[in-house]
Amino acid sequence: MKKTRPLLAWETLLDLDAASEPRAARTSLRNRLERALRAAVAEGRLPADAALPPSRVLADTIGVSRWVVTEAYGQLVAEGVLDARTGSATRVAASAHPSALPSSVAGITSTPAPRFDLRPGIPDLRATPRSRWASALRSALSTLPDSDLARAHPSGYLPARVAVAEHLSRSRHAVADPERVLLTHGASDGMSILATELHRRGHRAILVEDPSWPRLRDIAARAGLRPIPVPVDEEGVDASVLAEAAARTGARAALLTPAHQFPLGAALSAARREQVVHWARDHDAFVVEDDYDAEFRYDRRPIAALQRLAPDRIALFGSLSKSVSPALGIGWALLPPGIDPPPSTSAPSLVDQAALAHFIVNGDLERHLRASRIRFRRRRARLLDALRTELPDLTPSGIAAGMHLLLPLPAGCAAADVVAMATADLAITPLHRYAAGARAPEALVLGYGNLDDALVEETVARLGALIRAAAAPAS
Amino acid sequence: MKKTRPLLAWETLLDLDAASEPRAARTSLRNRLERALRAAVAEGRLPADAALPPSRVLADTIGVSRWVVTEAYGQLVAEGVLDARTGSATRVAASAHPSALPSSVAGITSTPAPRFDLRPGIPDLRATPRSRWASALRSALSTLPDSDLARAHPSGYLPARVAVAEHLSRSRHAVADPERVLLTHGASDGMSILATELHRRGHRAILVEDPSWPRLRDIAARAGLRPIPVPVDEEGVDASVLAEAAARTGARAALLTPAHQFPLGAALSAARREQVVHWARDHDAFVVEDDYDAEFRYDRRPIAALQRLAPDRIALFGSLSKSVSPALGIGWALLPPGIDPPPSTSAPSLVDQAALAHFIVNGDLERHLRASRIRFRRRRARLLDALRTELPDLTPSGIAAGMHLLLPLPAGCAAADVVAMATADLAITPLHRYAAGARAPEALVLGYGNLDDALVEETVARLGALIRAAAAPAS
Repeated sequence: MKKTRPLLAWETLLDLDAASEPRAARTSLRNRLERALRAAVAEGRLPADAALPPSRVLADTIGVSRWVVTEAYGQLVAEGVLDARTGSATRVAASAHPSALPSSVAGITSTPAPRFDLRPGIPDLRATPRSRWASALRSALSTLPDSDLARAHPSGYLPARVAVAEHLSRSRHAVADPERVLLTHGASDGMSILATELHRRGHRAILVEDPSWPRLRDIAARAGLRPIPVPVDEEGVDASVLAEAAARTGARAALLTPAHQFPLGAALSAARREQVVHWARDHDAFVVEDDYDAEFRYDRRPIAALQRLAPDRIALFGSLSKSVSPALGIGWALLPPGIDPPPSTSAPSLVDQAALAHFIVNGDLERHLRASRIRFRRRRARLLDALRTELPDLTPSGIAAGMHLLLPLPAGCAAADVVAMATADLAITPLHRYAAGARAPEALVLGYGNLDDALVEETVARLGALIRAAAAPAS
Repeated sequence: MKKTRPLLAWETLLDLDAASEPRAARTSLRNRLERALRAAVAEGRLPADAALPPSRVLADTIGVSRWVVTEAYGQLVAEGVLDARTGSATRVAASAHPSALPSSVAGITSTPAPRFDLRPGIPDLRATPRSRWASALRSALSTLPDSDLARAHPSGYLPARVAVAEHLSRSRHAVADPERVLLTHGASDGMSILATELHRRGHRAILVEDPSWPRLRDIAARAGLRPIPVPVDEEGVDASVLAEAAARTGARAALLTPAHQFPLGAALSAARREQVVHWARDHDAFVVEDDYDAEFRYDRRPIAALQRLAPDRIALFGSLSKSVSPALGIGWALLPPGIDPPPSTSAPSLVDQAALAHFIVNGDLERHLRASRIRFRRRRARLLDALRTELPDLTPSGIAAGMHLLLPLPAGCAAADVVAMATADLAITPLHRYAAGARAPEALVLGYGNLDDALVEETVARLGALIRAAAAPAS
């Protein structure tokens, strides 16, 4: 199949990119060039094996320093998009040539993410390790033995379960037996499976933090477990209130976020950790530990998973969705002995599971988490600085970990008003969206996982203007 | 990280392979060399960027013709395992270097598939398009826009749904609106989702073919739909018996395999297709069309999907599991309007869905199906020849399509006895394993999807000996 499309007009490479991407002007020349070249390859404007201009020539053509071009070429060679060999032109890689879908199939053109993106629970989409996950998938596909391809792996592919167990044991100090690891698509999938199993065993209610992420509560409810809200304060869930609610309702299961409460941000205090575990032991109860962003902890040493204190009573949920990318659709549940859900009809594919094993064992997960931790710590500092400057009277909380913080609003300022006044390109979330029963205080949950570093100040300036406008007495 | 392992001892390359792989002696030299090189790269014996000997030198060293080496190199370059550039040595690709898992994580060493593999419902594992699926995944990862990564795609990623709809419309003449395509992990997943939805709408029973694949019946039963067996004969399911059973039990849903009944092998006759559709129309009923191996049809033109006759009443299930590989864990359900299951917590990953779109749109699926059809047609002919020679008194049936046939046993010979006498390396399946109610005739279901071409005659010889021994009067 001969390509007949004209080759790239090199001199328009960066212009085109800047025109089509408003944020591009704020990113480095090198990043812009990388993106432009990646897009040109992806869209077939640069076909497989096409030779690229020598770096000096391209640098002159588009008016950047040669260093910018050599760095961009180098990055794309590392990603397998380009192919370089000493003494020969850099070319578009033949084997790794990614082809975009024709527009007939691409369906809708995708709407861009909000420019000023303060959505909680989303990692840095720009930093998705696309190339490393592709390598993990390729390793999986290259090395899976034929005989494993058609075999049933009821709780998951054993090498993946071993890799996850080692990861949880190392990074979360969990008591992790590979036999107790279930491969899932993430916390929602784990919750659906576990809630169904608890319902089968006679459970009809589950204690949930108030406020908390509604999705997992809703999934529990759909499986027949009524969510019973338990208030959360600055030390996390109040264990004595938890025990009272359990006694009142007969609930013998609880869904908690001990490492970093979502959305208030507390780490469950040591005393309360003990109390929760005692409650579970004394009442033959189960705890679901949603370990959704425990990887990102800045001011103190990471807290070990609660699961460690009572592996026979606590199910630990984790995934790559909030730490790497939701697009990978893979996670795990470390289940207590005796909790054995029936084989799933919708487990992650064997290839994805084997890729996870490679990703963990090769150190790619740890590398990604380390880089993310550094990036998020910097961004958090910058965001806190900007908030101090722009909104000096407000005191953010829940900042010790994770990718979000809580911003209580000034007296008389309603979160709903702030959100209602925001333009579509500014994504902000009122705390009351997470309320499970009690009315939530007027506050905003500000996620910074996907906040563009170059836009932190502008985002906060816009946010400040909105808050001041909402706080002003109505005219 | 410096590799300290010794490089490959080239002269032992093929010897090693032959010693470790009994079947290797039967495959071509070129295939053996490819496998040996692929394994050497996978296991790290050939590190990234290692130069391979010139083809002439390697050919002399291991004693094969130069053509064998150039062909093997060429294939591995196409797969991205090796990297070739004119005027330079062929090298192990840097970016695509697949690394095997260390044995600590690999967990158990995998038990090999049965050598004489007559399991039904498994495609040719040796022909898994590993490299092409890896390319589709890489394309997906390279081209998915950032903004799509964190977006919910409740029924699936739209480009994948469009690609599946086009595929179903083209290859199965289905009436396929992308809006009605749900991305699943395969027929089991689809059945679980649809049965749960039918149960929610008040259904409590589902008509199933007898005999049929137990897995889908079991999944329906788990979701609360009691399976009602309906006998199958040489024209497929008897539509008047189906209507009677529906009237008797109040069932308004039926699970059918119209293209190629599993396991008896009939194609539903034209008259019965009409009758089934009339029944569904007259009784406000739904039909689930499990299109599990409709791609492989040899003696006649493919029959269009039943779904075409009544898109408002028929759900069409398909997947790559039986046509490409169960390890990919991806499939689809084309649902009638109005059947809208709630968003899944365990959909295939966005990356897998986008890869499916690339795989279909790039023509890889059609290419794979075409090659498989040719391979299976040849293998079927060889298998029928061998059966005629070895067991001339038996008449296989259900041979017009798919990857299996039915072998009725001689009078007095019990399928259970034949299976009981088989050694572990010969996988055979008695028909009665698929019985849903009525007692099945004494017969074997012989799958040839993963039967090694080189072992067809030996497999049939072993089978013949077992049948003769089981048929002999007890001494």
